[in-house]
Amino acid sequence: MTMIDIIEKKKKGKELTSEEIGFFIDGVTNRLIPDYQISALLMAIVLKGMSDDEMTTLTLAMANSGETNDLSFIDGIAVDKHSSGGVGDKCTPIVLPLVATFGVESVKLSGRGLGITGGTIDKFESIEGFSTSIAIEDFPSKIRDCGMVISGQTPDLAPADKVLYALRDVTATVDSIPLIASSIMSKKIAGGAKAIILDVKCGSGAFMKTKEDAMKLAQAMMSIGKLAKRDVRCIVSDMDQPLGNNCGNVLEMQEVHFTLSGSGPEDLVCISSIIAAHMVDMAGKANGMSFEELVNECKNRLNNGMALEKYKDLILSQGGCISSTGGPVYVDVPFEVFSISAPCDGYISRVDASLIGKACVTVGSGRLTKEDKIDYGAGVVLRKKIGDRVSRGDTLCSIYVGRSIEADDEKVDTAASYALDAYEICDIPVEKGPIIISTLV
Amino acid sequence: MTMIDIIEKKKKGKELTSEEIGFFIDGVTNRLIPDYQISALLMAIVLKGMSDDEMTTLTLAMANSGETNDLSFIDGIAVDKHSSGGVGDKCTPIVLPLVATFGVESVKLSGRGLGITGGTIDKFESIEGFSTSIAIEDFPSKIRDCGMVISGQTPDLAPADKVLYALRDVTATVDSIPLIASSIMSKKIAGGAKAIILDVKCGSGAFMKTKEDAMKLAQAMMSIGKLAKRDVRCIVSDMDQPLGNNCGNVLEMQEVHFTLSGSGPEDLVCISSIIAAHMVDMAGKANGMSFEELVNECKNRLNNGMALEKYKDLILSQGGCISSTGGPVYVDVPFEVFSISAPCDGYISRVDASLIGKACVTVGSGRLTKEDKIDYGAGVVLRKKIGDRVSRGDTLCSIYVGRSIEADDEKVDTAASYALDAYEICDIPVEKGPIIISTLV
Repeated sequence: MTMIDIIEKKKKGKELTSEEIGFFIDGVTNRLIPDYQISALLMAIVLKGMSDDEMTTLTLAMANSGETNDLSFIDGIAVDKHSSGGVGDKCTPIVLPLVATFGVESVKLSGRGLGITGGTIDKFESIEGFSTSIAIEDFPSKIRDCGMVISGQTPDLAPADKVLYALRDVTATVDSIPLIASSIMSKKIAGGAKAIILDVKCGSGAFMKTKEDAMKLAQAMMSIGKLAKRDVRCIVSDMDQPLGNNCGNVLEMQEVHFTLSGSGPEDLVCISSIIAAHMVDMAGKANGMSFEELVNECKNRLNNGMALEKYKDLILSQGGCISSTGGPVYVDVPFEVFSISAPCDGYISRVDASLIGKACVTVGSGRLTKEDKIDYGAGVVLRKKIGDRVSRGDTLCSIYVGRSIEADDEKVDTAASYALDAYEICDIPVEKGPIIISTLV
Repeated sequence: MTMIDIIEKKKKGKELTSEEIGFFIDGVTNRLIPDYQISALLMAIVLKGMSDDEMTTLTLAMANSGETNDLSFIDGIAVDKHSSGGVGDKCTPIVLPLVATFGVESVKLSGRGLGITGGTIDKFESIEGFSTSIAIEDFPSKIRDCGMVISGQTPDLAPADKVLYALRDVTATVDSIPLIASSIMSKKIAGGAKAIILDVKCGSGAFMKTKEDAMKLAQAMMSIGKLAKRDVRCIVSDMDQPLGNNCGNVLEMQEVHFTLSGSGPEDLVCISSIIAAHMVDMAGKANGMSFEELVNECKNRLNNGMALEKYKDLILSQGGCISSTGGPVYVDVPFEVFSISAPCDGYISRVDASLIGKACVTVGSGRLTKEDKIDYGAGVVLRKKIGDRVSRGDTLCSIYVGRSIEADDEKVDTAASYALDAYEICDIPVEKGPIIISTLV
């Protein structure tokens, strides 16, 4: 077996055997296969696809290419959540404390943001003192503390995926359902999850722009889950407009706090409750409740302060600061520098998530390259969303920078023009679409 | 413009602009583009194709990526021939002296053989003393000597093609009509040819196995020629069975000598005369003769010794040895070690060129890797070809090794089994197919 034979076979659209995929991933992990052969195979996979069996074999080979987490210290079934990423997606800090109230213990490994997509680790780091570098050996004690632990990904999980991911980025081989699905699933499986709830975002602010593509990715990951014997459920959710109202690290954690205090925006409350209900159900902690009852109970626990208490436990467990009035202390304070007004009367028909994301990155809330520093206080707060009625002069959204940062007028202007472009106003009433487009179980 | 954008565009099947192709080839030539990006683009080209315009731009960019030969010292129009390679293809040493009798001057840059495909340089080097390393500055004096010069390719012609060629070999991206066509044409154009006759071989012993693929390659090169303003003609010729009877370096040069002495096998005489007639016509030396008259005149000049005299001039011009009886002196003498007998009566219906080629390589007439040494005396002589009637026990073909080489019994056995497998005998008379399958002008 040679790498040339394997490339040749995939180039002709044939199915690779598990021996061939194993040979490939071994060679990638041990850096025995030159990058030019890896990238030729990646391009052949992008253009010729992979069967469910191939994707699953690739996923498991990547998952086993390095260390794997042993989560046997967790009470019950280890359940994980994953979001394909979007603008204003702040479900994790809501869902983890919420499911902890049901006795669901979570080890959450997360990443940093890049481009318009935020990262959970950055969001938690906007809380003063909160440490996101927790050693694996400390996971069990953190779980005993508060039932949750959140940490940046360790470098030894799925190293083959890291090699392929870096190479895909520079060879225009990112947009392949089998490669995306196996990359996501390999990290989740290496992370030790037995059950996984996937949230595939769909729309202008997501990697999957169309419902069709999002459904394909969702189905691919469901197939991998089935063949790899993991309990997988998947929701496809709307990311044409940002989730919730606040975008930017501190701004989002403020909205998390509102939501855990019973004052969250409807879309964020809805999706967080549904994700949490799936996790509770998959973890075997439903206690005889139906799915609808579970969702309602989740909403109750956002309103009655139970989830908020767990959230505070998590912050304290990882060294974060709580103020004397009971809320988190943030590393920076968002400061409103500009607001966008409605140019006419009408109904909001579009709030383009991609453009709002660009506005946020422009004022410093995100990174364009992995080395960029971010302004935790920067971001955009939406005052109006799809379906809302506006009069000329009403504020559509506001642009923020960190209190410690001097506002750069040129950047604020650019961000304002992105934000204005994001809005579309029409004469006739507009109906809001559902936040959850489809559910696969 | 970035290389990622270019890969992305081709991945989507879009046409690259001449700026984009120029950026790519510049980066390849100057080694500014990493191999992993080059191979990703090559795979995208293999799977998504190229338009005639793209192929032509690629060809000219590669042709201009290094030095180009100035053939202005040649009398008339500089005409070149190219064969896509096969088993027993020995036209060049016949055609060059033959066209020289019409005053057509040729600078022929050739390569060495690899795998079952022989190389013209190896064949000439089987003549004692013959030098194939002629400095470019000596080309004009050699042309004045005898109207011909033959030399190994200089390393500075089309360097971008050399980089791509080496990478294609190890990334399973060889079999692409646009990449093959542009590679061939870039070398011919950099070599200074204004007119080119292409011989695309088709069948088991050729790179193009089917008539369909051979026609596609021929049409691609015709299109490039038209757009690049070169006079190009193309024949598609049969390579299901070897050309002529002798395969192997000295054995082939012996058959060249027979042919130039008026005793050549019919297929070899036919194709050599037709290629020569095209060259004479394209070089503007037809002197009013029609194409049929030219072909007949070529056959005459093989029979009447005119071409043989020119052949001897060429050998002497490049330092080769002529014996006292007037023939070339070879570096080795083929020695028959085995003959294959017909297992039954019947008619020959197949002599698989690929298997005869493998038999030759097995006994040492060719290279498996570029570093292998070859046995100039080794090879196979066909005693029967398609259409011939045989009786049980008749010799079908004979296996030779060089007189200076001790025959390795195991290799001879393996070669004999390839050679036997190459033959198919059936009960009913078989009609010979034409040697030239199609002509494109």
